[in-house]
Amino acid sequence: MNIIGLVLLLVCSLGACYGRSGPRMAESWRDIQQQRKAAQDSLGQGQLWPEPQQYNCSSKLLLLEHFRFAVKGPRCSILDEAIQRYYKMIFRRPSKPRHWLKANSSGKGDIATLSKVYIMINPQNPCSDNDMPDVDMDEHYEVNLRDPTFPSLIVANTIWGALRGLETFSQMIWKLDDGRMVVNQSILVDYPRFSHRGLMLDTSRHFISKQVLLQNLDAMAMNKYNVFHWHIVDDQSFPYQSRTFPDLSTLGAWEPYEHIYTQEDIAEVIEYARLRGIRVIAEFDTPGHSASWGAALSQLLTPCYSNGSADGTFGPINPILSSTYETLEALFTEIMEVFPDNYLHLGGDEVDFTCWQSNPAITTFMNKSGYGKDYAKLEEYYIQTLLDILEKIPTKLPAKVAPKRHEFVVWQEVFDNNVVLDGKTIVHIWKDWKGTEWQPEMHSVTKAGYRAILSACWYLNYISYGADWQTYYRCDPQNFNGTAAQKNLVVGGETCMWGEYIDSTNVMIKLWPRASAVAERLWSAQSVTDIGNAEKRLRAHRCRMNRRGIPAEPNLGPDFCATEYSP
Amino acid sequence: MNIIGLVLLLVCSLGACYGRSGPRMAESWRDIQQQRKAAQDSLGQGQLWPEPQQYNCSSKLLLLEHFRFAVKGPRCSILDEAIQRYYKMIFRRPSKPRHWLKANSSGKGDIATLSKVYIMINPQNPCSDNDMPDVDMDEHYEVNLRDPTFPSLIVANTIWGALRGLETFSQMIWKLDDGRMVVNQSILVDYPRFSHRGLMLDTSRHFISKQVLLQNLDAMAMNKYNVFHWHIVDDQSFPYQSRTFPDLSTLGAWEPYEHIYTQEDIAEVIEYARLRGIRVIAEFDTPGHSASWGAALSQLLTPCYSNGSADGTFGPINPILSSTYETLEALFTEIMEVFPDNYLHLGGDEVDFTCWQSNPAITTFMNKSGYGKDYAKLEEYYIQTLLDILEKIPTKLPAKVAPKRHEFVVWQEVFDNNVVLDGKTIVHIWKDWKGTEWQPEMHSVTKAGYRAILSACWYLNYISYGADWQTYYRCDPQNFNGTAAQKNLVVGGETCMWGEYIDSTNVMIKLWPRASAVAERLWSAQSVTDIGNAEKRLRAHRCRMNRRGIPAEPNLGPDFCATEYSP
Repeated sequence: MNIIGLVLLLVCSLGACYGRSGPRMAESWRDIQQQRKAAQDSLGQGQLWPEPQQYNCSSKLLLLEHFRFAVKGPRCSILDEAIQRYYKMIFRRPSKPRHWLKANSSGKGDIATLSKVYIMINPQNPCSDNDMPDVDMDEHYEVNLRDPTFPSLIVANTIWGALRGLETFSQMIWKLDDGRMVVNQSILVDYPRFSHRGLMLDTSRHFISKQVLLQNLDAMAMNKYNVFHWHIVDDQSFPYQSRTFPDLSTLGAWEPYEHIYTQEDIAEVIEYARLRGIRVIAEFDTPGHSASWGAALSQLLTPCYSNGSADGTFGPINPILSSTYETLEALFTEIMEVFPDNYLHLGGDEVDFTCWQSNPAITTFMNKSGYGKDYAKLEEYYIQTLLDILEKIPTKLPAKVAPKRHEFVVWQEVFDNNVVLDGKTIVHIWKDWKGTEWQPEMHSVTKAGYRAILSACWYLNYISYGADWQTYYRCDPQNFNGTAAQKNLVVGGETCMWGEYIDSTNVMIKLWPRASAVAERLWSAQSVTDIGNAEKRLRAHRCRMNRRGIPAEPNLGPDFCATEYSP
Repeated sequence: MNIIGLVLLLVCSLGACYGRSGPRMAESWRDIQQQRKAAQDSLGQGQLWPEPQQYNCSSKLLLLEHFRFAVKGPRCSILDEAIQRYYKMIFRRPSKPRHWLKANSSGKGDIATLSKVYIMINPQNPCSDNDMPDVDMDEHYEVNLRDPTFPSLIVANTIWGALRGLETFSQMIWKLDDGRMVVNQSILVDYPRFSHRGLMLDTSRHFISKQVLLQNLDAMAMNKYNVFHWHIVDDQSFPYQSRTFPDLSTLGAWEPYEHIYTQEDIAEVIEYARLRGIRVIAEFDTPGHSASWGAALSQLLTPCYSNGSADGTFGPINPILSSTYETLEALFTEIMEVFPDNYLHLGGDEVDFTCWQSNPAITTFMNKSGYGKDYAKLEEYYIQTLLDILEKIPTKLPAKVAPKRHEFVVWQEVFDNNVVLDGKTIVHIWKDWKGTEWQPEMHSVTKAGYRAILSACWYLNYISYGADWQTYYRCDPQNFNGTAAQKNLVVGGETCMWGEYIDSTNVMIKLWPRASAVAERLWSAQSVTDIGNAEKRLRAHRCRMNRRGIPAEPNLGPDFCATEYSP
């Protein structure tokens, strides 16, 4: 039985407990009144998500009237476009006046007016039209909304901080019951706890349309995610349309016209992300998870043997042929040009050794190399050879194309197999069958001095009934045995959405607002753990996403949004 | 802990097994090739869902050219509108020619042409513009697509059969790889196994927009469902805008403007359903699940007592006051006018006795009536009194409004509590904690001579990872110990979608194509149980729903649709 079968069996056997019919959920009068109150409360004061680091919020209000943003100091097209975007988010499709509530606006006729918020980027970091977000970007910002005798400000060290500040400011705005838009006078200081706050999508098991990828980038920006990890190809399909090897998608995609990402599609996704301060890290996973590569480049894969002869099936990439590395060098040279981020995800997970074991040429190579029966050594050899090649590629690329790029993210198996990694390599921890398995791994990776990101507890493709966001919310990447130095090596984490049961129909609904829980864990202070407080803010945030056109599902139990989702 | 809490705990404790990260699903070469082949295969020949009763399908093709339907015999606006609808479904947004496949059309230049299909309704059952589908509707139809020297026909006894035949015919059409539309020469005889094939939506825990209700009726018609059970109100909200008691929604809806169903909305839903041969059975659940009624009609609910005095909370409807029954008579008189189906769902489930037990006036009534401590007797008294009132209402209604209507569906507790029911009452079986609990209940209900419908194994609001449709598919409502006479009393079943975690954002995705599994169980022959065969047809059907604008999610594992969903 393959692993899919095993998982299905497991889920089916659990099914009897909850998959069949259950209660109609008769509830007490008090529970119901509490639900109605919570839903009404979420309509109130601007609820922020993720929670900022410091937030002094006064009860004094400022009324948005003749409102505009004014840029002081450095400006660039990234900022100008963001300002236009936030005007629309704030003022288009506003929630309506809530006539059904008793007006609470009496005596508020004299609210001071806020007609201008200055956006100021530190003049020492002037922003330019072509700036790219990168691993070192500074996202610190402050929002000061003061008595109108002082100027109100969004201040940031860089354009990236200014983008985060605009999002937060847009969330601070709320409505009086008569429909007027207000903010509380506040001083807010904010910056992320982790620098790598990623969301991974798998576009191989099912194709996801470009339109949905862009919509998801909007949702990511609302949640202060800053990395789109694009697991673009895998065993099942190869939707990346390569300039160098066009047959990879012509033969390896599900269908070669409407189920591929062209060079233009990819450039559009990267640009859309860039304007929102989101990096795009592509993953071309090898040597396993590469069956779809074989449709065009069958010589790249290892022929498997049964009863002494090749049986027509193929295994991982063939690590013993020089042609393999020539092909990979050509392809990765293209990839490094196309994806300008200074990190590339190399995969390296779940390499099945049985095909390598069956192949006589590989056996000969193993013996010659002194690896004996240790196929992990062969995998190490493959990755090491690939890394050596990749590290030299940037020197061959045009200077304008990301000259710095020579850093990598790898799944944990690469570390487990003792590959010697560059000190800047990030190890991506994902294994977690029992819910605690990632912690010793995190200890080992950081003890060896490598940087790490966590996904083990954030596989959002796995679904369960009810408010499962709490499980994701409670998982903390620094919650493992280790020194302060080790914990500092944890640079963040990633939400993973594998594509076995996901496509354009349902990916947004499965992600949001569940991925918001992870976003707050990665941005906000470690001490922000109160579920009740989070629930109140998340309820408002879910409705805000709906209002802005993101179909975030109602995963907090019975409630409603003043402005419901409409596509 | 209330029941919600219990369920969450149960789910959380299971969470460790599958809710955390799991395998990346490395799969064998053969598995992957099989997935790719299955996805390609689903593009092929017209795959029907649900499976018809008899289907003799020849390999000879007919080419649709200058195609039109021609009505022979009775016609009415229901049929005319259906024909227009199916023209659009068949010819709008067709899947494109599949240029990437090797053309398989060679030598098919000489396919015989099909340019006309006659639709013939039995002249003895002329259809009229105002026909309403009802419990006794005859859905039998036949499709004969012959050598062009014979006329091709969709024949039915009634308009309702003709609608089912049109859907089937539209599914029989498929595409050659060059894009030409063909059908196989076939003789198909079809009729439903069960007369009651329902889908229940709860619009109280969350509001579902009218637009989504209509879209769902389209999806139901594609799956040959014939009952929309509208669980329109419940504890959390009362979105039904009553003419008699408008405050029920003004005070009891989540919000009284955009979260209600007006009389016009309801009429539109009923009409949209009627044109598709779908009955709308409304449920106004009492005496429990009625907290939201109390916002406007607090005297209708039982005041609960703590420490000798009313504590401000309320329980089920107060069964001991004559004012209760006067209010209910007025409301249900309106409801019976608004919902013309001859069945009404009265609820009657999950009545919590603790509030009744606390109330001194009820204690006095219990003693006076000789009920002792048996509150089930009080519930029986309530339902019996209500039934007596309701049965007299139709005689008071205008003759044009459904003169026959005096029949009811009730949740199983009403039977369990020994209420004397009319012989035509349908008992709705839902309890199934252990996955087998419904079978003895089905035995008892049918042994007592009542008709029954099953929902226990079809609570689709409960979700789990992977291809859970198989669980729903395997559940058979006649799979219980009982005589043939008892089994004949099982008139069908209903898919239930309770609304705790469901609203307009996600209801369609959670329903489809999982609800298709139930649809086939309720329509097709008992012997249709082959999962492999079903999977192949369901894969094609999922894509067909996507092509027609229904966001049915990919719950069969990695695949693709030639024409993907676009909203």
